[in-house]
Amino acid sequence: MTEQSITDDKKPQTATATAPLAKTLEALRAALGADAVRVGEQIGEHAMTDWTRHEPTRPAALLLPRTTDEVSRALSICHAAHQPVVPQGGMTGLAGGAIARANDIALSLERLSGVEELDAASATLTVRAGTTLQAAQEAAEAAGFELALDLGARGSCQIGGNLATNAGGNRVIQSGTARDQVLGLEVVLANGDVLSSLGKMVKNNTGYDLKHWFIGSEGTLGVITRAVLRLHPRRAARHTALVAIDDYDAAVSLLRRLATRFGNDIGAFEIMWPDFYDFGVKLTGARSPFDAPHPLYALIEHAGFDADDAGERFAQALTDALQAGALRDAVIAQSVADARALWAIRECTAEFPIKLDPINFDVSLPIGEIGRFVDRCRAALDQRWPGNQAYFFGHIGDSNLHLTVDGHSIPGVDHHAVYAFVYQMLGPLRGSVSAEHGIGSLKREFLPISRSPAELAAMVAIKHALDPHGILNPGKLF
Amino acid sequence: MTEQSITDDKKPQTATATAPLAKTLEALRAALGADAVRVGEQIGEHAMTDWTRHEPTRPAALLLPRTTDEVSRALSICHAAHQPVVPQGGMTGLAGGAIARANDIALSLERLSGVEELDAASATLTVRAGTTLQAAQEAAEAAGFELALDLGARGSCQIGGNLATNAGGNRVIQSGTARDQVLGLEVVLANGDVLSSLGKMVKNNTGYDLKHWFIGSEGTLGVITRAVLRLHPRRAARHTALVAIDDYDAAVSLLRRLATRFGNDIGAFEIMWPDFYDFGVKLTGARSPFDAPHPLYALIEHAGFDADDAGERFAQALTDALQAGALRDAVIAQSVADARALWAIRECTAEFPIKLDPINFDVSLPIGEIGRFVDRCRAALDQRWPGNQAYFFGHIGDSNLHLTVDGHSIPGVDHHAVYAFVYQMLGPLRGSVSAEHGIGSLKREFLPISRSPAELAAMVAIKHALDPHGILNPGKLF
Repeated sequence: MTEQSITDDKKPQTATATAPLAKTLEALRAALGADAVRVGEQIGEHAMTDWTRHEPTRPAALLLPRTTDEVSRALSICHAAHQPVVPQGGMTGLAGGAIARANDIALSLERLSGVEELDAASATLTVRAGTTLQAAQEAAEAAGFELALDLGARGSCQIGGNLATNAGGNRVIQSGTARDQVLGLEVVLANGDVLSSLGKMVKNNTGYDLKHWFIGSEGTLGVITRAVLRLHPRRAARHTALVAIDDYDAAVSLLRRLATRFGNDIGAFEIMWPDFYDFGVKLTGARSPFDAPHPLYALIEHAGFDADDAGERFAQALTDALQAGALRDAVIAQSVADARALWAIRECTAEFPIKLDPINFDVSLPIGEIGRFVDRCRAALDQRWPGNQAYFFGHIGDSNLHLTVDGHSIPGVDHHAVYAFVYQMLGPLRGSVSAEHGIGSLKREFLPISRSPAELAAMVAIKHALDPHGILNPGKLF
Repeated sequence: MTEQSITDDKKPQTATATAPLAKTLEALRAALGADAVRVGEQIGEHAMTDWTRHEPTRPAALLLPRTTDEVSRALSICHAAHQPVVPQGGMTGLAGGAIARANDIALSLERLSGVEELDAASATLTVRAGTTLQAAQEAAEAAGFELALDLGARGSCQIGGNLATNAGGNRVIQSGTARDQVLGLEVVLANGDVLSSLGKMVKNNTGYDLKHWFIGSEGTLGVITRAVLRLHPRRAARHTALVAIDDYDAAVSLLRRLATRFGNDIGAFEIMWPDFYDFGVKLTGARSPFDAPHPLYALIEHAGFDADDAGERFAQALTDALQAGALRDAVIAQSVADARALWAIRECTAEFPIKLDPINFDVSLPIGEIGRFVDRCRAALDQRWPGNQAYFFGHIGDSNLHLTVDGHSIPGVDHHAVYAFVYQMLGPLRGSVSAEHGIGSLKREFLPISRSPAELAAMVAIKHALDPHGILNPGKLF
């Protein structure tokens, strides 16, 4: 019935430089100063790869602008020259989204860093894109607030990259993803135009909400330079429990039961299937607090405010659940050391790159479907690759399932074949091939599993509109 | 430094029909059936105006599609004919955003209504756009959940309109605006292409998050046909208090103090300046529970889960605040009737259209700035229009300030002059001329107060990309 598609091109424009590189670099040096334009051996390893351990590639140049205006000048020059530009943050990505190719110019935000303002009355933090997440967290905490974004990479990752990838992390069940922390955003478009939408308001219905176009767009629509983040009251009272559960449906029921009692004071609800749990215990040398094995485990954290009796109320809720048959057993941490020991099992994943040949999945699907998907996925993997070792775990309150298959357990297997095999199982469930890590360059070919041709065409139309020459992060996403 | 702007046209394309109306209507009747295409006297008053009491205008036709496919066919035909289309929901808007002009075709979603699915395990509700907010709320409540979106217009307004305008309402401080309730969205683009992004996942980083492009775009980028909404646990324990405070800064301190103790169990924090409070008491015949007048009042609601002692904990927090000098006096409702009596003062605004000639403002600015803005605004109004009656109140936790000036108190005043006078005061503060009601047709000329030329140009570029002929809701927003 459709007269024409909104775009005739199903692929976005990908820039090919129309000016000689030397001439572009000359203009960039004139605009930013010679020390802000590095080439060849001046470019360190840091700009060449990310946490995917991608084969290091040296870009044609590395730009180090210090201000929004310098980012604007740099992009304006590259836009005129049709020169591809790859924005870079802390290079902690897991999808190859910030890796530049040999003919690309990398644009690092690292010098555009620091907290500009903490407005305690408005509960906002204004930061430059190159600020590390940890520095932003510390600024919030120093003023008695909490930044509700936390990831393992906090010491290295940068706010700009967190927002460009809509990072998830440890507090999503409580406060949402990176997107949900943003009140205002400043972005430089491909042609150098600066969109400075640095409002501090929770409510603002004045036309299209521009910040949402750029958050999660992986540097393909603009370069984030500053942000206004919302601050939350600090949740000082944390209580941790490890519980044993009958099955996945019982886990969902327990989650709903606790949510009905504590709302989003539930700060973590991490499900571990037995293969993962047993391996975690073994890997970390921890001792399982349970005498017998169980069908499923959940690590639950209550993160509240009312320090006086929060622990007792959490313990009472678990006791009630036990008496109601809603869980099989529970262990509540009595000290910070206890809590750390319980978390150590879940955090055994830090050892995966050393002990395994990890084939990692970060998928999402409706919360109600995750249990059945795990069963089906395990059966299908066992049929296809008998003897494989697969470890399932996930933040189920966020609809996020992680799976690591150990390549060592399937000698000679092509990782790509395992990726394709698992991802294609998500299609019929409208699942997502990337819950939190993004698409980058590594999952491009799988994007059509999660997005329809019409959705992809709309994305391409938008990309054309904001970056007509296709200079921003070409080869990513699409 | 900019080589070229992302768009040369600073105004979006506005369609002028290229085919005779009769021919377009013939094609629409063939596609949707004759009963779904109404003209002339068949079009009721409902389709002609909204809650702004805009002069009723009869559109050229009213379409009543029953399915997403019918919406797609209708838009495809109008796109080919360059025929302007105005999407309509419950017509409860306050910015003229759904009012069609005489040559426009109105497209009502009212037949595309009903709850499609409640998925209790995933905590999601899938609804069609024409479903009233109240019907969606009732479906959620019947399953033991809560839809965290509530407005006075709940019985008439529709989910499609709520999302197209990113409605705010009564629970924003706790759970965000309409945008924050959406997990998945189905939209029909101007040319009839259907973007069906009806995922139920909290986390989904697979390319641009298309739903955010359409939420709050006031029907100018696509027609919302279905949505997956997230459900929250039901907050059954509500406790209300009215407190008297020294000044605005003390109100912000009290808000932070309570947030630090109760997180987002604080379900309302409504500030009333004395002019509003005194008028509300008079208007509703309520009795002020305080013996003496106070500089500022706050109506506070604790909406939690733990029914056992939530009331005592809230009362204790207010007692502590009183002892610490953080408030002057407090009255806690001891019954539902008590609570209603306190709310009646705040809800006296329902009488404004009857008792006043209301000139209403719905603005937002940084929480920390609201108090000083009110003082400055009042002084400026008094200087410009001595004797004016102005009533200030607001959801300050949401950064939202309302102001109603009574036109009767300034005989012969042009409402427009009052709007322009107050809005221009927001510019230097980066305030918003519309916190929650939207821009529609009524605030178009004021949009540049809140948005820069670069932001407006980016919006126009996106409008061009998704609606190249400019058929969707022309004359709104821009």
